[in-house]
Amino acid sequence: MSRLYNRVAFIGLGLIASSMAHAIRRAGLADSLTGTARSAQTRATADEIGLVNLVCDTAAEAVCGADLVVLCVPVGAMEAVAREIAPHLAPGATVTDVGSVKQAVIAAVGPHLPDTVHFIPGHPLAGTEHSGPRSGFAELFDNRWCILTPLEGAEADALHRLTQFWQGLGANVDLMDAAHHDLVLAVTSHTPHLIAYTMVGVADDLRRVTDSEVIKYSAAGFRDFTRIAASDPTMWRDVFLTNKDATLEILGRFTEELFVLQRAIRQGDGDLLHDYFSRTRAIRRGIVEAGQDTDAPDFGRAKTRAAQ
Amino acid sequence: MSRLYNRVAFIGLGLIASSMAHAIRRAGLADSLTGTARSAQTRATADEIGLVNLVCDTAAEAVCGADLVVLCVPVGAMEAVAREIAPHLAPGATVTDVGSVKQAVIAAVGPHLPDTVHFIPGHPLAGTEHSGPRSGFAELFDNRWCILTPLEGAEADALHRLTQFWQGLGANVDLMDAAHHDLVLAVTSHTPHLIAYTMVGVADDLRRVTDSEVIKYSAAGFRDFTRIAASDPTMWRDVFLTNKDATLEILGRFTEELFVLQRAIRQGDGDLLHDYFSRTRAIRRGIVEAGQDTDAPDFGRAKTRAAQ
Repeated sequence: MSRLYNRVAFIGLGLIASSMAHAIRRAGLADSLTGTARSAQTRATADEIGLVNLVCDTAAEAVCGADLVVLCVPVGAMEAVAREIAPHLAPGATVTDVGSVKQAVIAAVGPHLPDTVHFIPGHPLAGTEHSGPRSGFAELFDNRWCILTPLEGAEADALHRLTQFWQGLGANVDLMDAAHHDLVLAVTSHTPHLIAYTMVGVADDLRRVTDSEVIKYSAAGFRDFTRIAASDPTMWRDVFLTNKDATLEILGRFTEELFVLQRAIRQGDGDLLHDYFSRTRAIRRGIVEAGQDTDAPDFGRAKTRAAQ
Repeated sequence: MSRLYNRVAFIGLGLIASSMAHAIRRAGLADSLTGTARSAQTRATADEIGLVNLVCDTAAEAVCGADLVVLCVPVGAMEAVAREIAPHLAPGATVTDVGSVKQAVIAAVGPHLPDTVHFIPGHPLAGTEHSGPRSGFAELFDNRWCILTPLEGAEADALHRLTQFWQGLGANVDLMDAAHHDLVLAVTSHTPHLIAYTMVGVADDLRRVTDSEVIKYSAAGFRDFTRIAASDPTMWRDVFLTNKDATLEILGRFTEELFVLQRAIRQGDGDLLHDYFSRTRAIRRGIVEAGQDTDAPDFGRAKTRAAQ
């Protein structure tokens, strides 16, 4: 893979930005990297581990001379960042983001950017429950999807280059309408996260089942929930506040279904339960066949780690 | 580890029984193994792969001469099995089970067994989403918990031997009251499974989000849910039907909490969401520290498998 950008600027230096930095270097996709973060401690850490070539104190400095600017801040912080960087963006630069919600980012960022730059919103479907500049690793995006949601009239060359860039990071790229993206993600990611947070919260509240028992006997389904529910609180707060309509719609459907199963349990309707559980089993097979997970049983231990 | 039983009989030859068979041989805990299953195909497979020394057509034959009998059938099938084996149990034999619910098993099995045997209910907290005699592996129980719920007046020697047996299979053993077990498991396993089944069912129902999109973009939280929701339908139907009260109680609390978060999303109460998500993060740390999961990020690929 050859060089695609001269200088890439990261606004925000968490899991996604730090993984992108490692993957850019792995593939030689850019000559130099700059970055900034709101927290002085995060900037100091990034500097200490040499995450980018230049750590800047402000977003305005970081974007100076960059031909690709990647907004890696929580969705709720996007508008302030867009306002700050707008006067400092190089003409012809591409501005993209990695936010989990796309309509809200477009509404928050789009109006502030000058016509001289290409704004192409994006969302890599990859992550772990860890955060911060030390959590990144080059393989995070390998064989994962990155969804770009270009606005009408997006420049073809800029879009093509950003697509190649994400492919160079290891991802498969898909284009999608922003509204459709937000609905799909409400199903596959946002609502499941909310449910996991809720279940872990219930366990935490129970007085008769002490913390230590919940933790000690978490070998079964609950363990996966705690993993999901350990994700970054600020990022997820912003996701739910900005993808409100789609999340509430899916939550409504979820509650409806849950009440059907709850009623079947109360009434002892084993046939309904068995049919329901057989149907969901087939979806799992589809995911394994699509290569998005392994068929190896996950019993919570002994995972290999591609890099750290 | 030295030999603890002369002959171990398995009624049911699924994931748990087959993993126990491998682990017994790994540690040399018994001289011979017998087994049976309701399905002729399961019996033929067990025979073909040499899972036990003798595959029998009936449970009555399988328990003949066994000093340990392990009931590895779904909870709903326990009573019929107990009735069938009761007249054929060797005096002094220990009868145990691996069911996920304990009060219902005690009620279903206890009354049928003769006074000449030791009935000690048990539940190993281990599993994968796979089932059948080929799915077992010797390491399934390593460093997992096995909860025994002995009845009042259980014979100390028989309990001690069964405890050593599970330790020999790699597990840590705890004793617990059956009712408390059922409540703890409703929190850490049963309700999470029902929720995962529900969420996968919702995704399956949605018309605008096609199956292929749900599968394709399942990189995030949903993937973990599909793994949970791929578990054996019969086993889980029986769990919910037999641990009805505890499951319904926890489901009620879950719905209550979910509505609080749903209202916060609707009203845009970011502080409530952020506080909630920060609190659940701490529980995850507890689980990692308790050694029940690794801190390595789970991004759904490249897991090592101890054995197959």
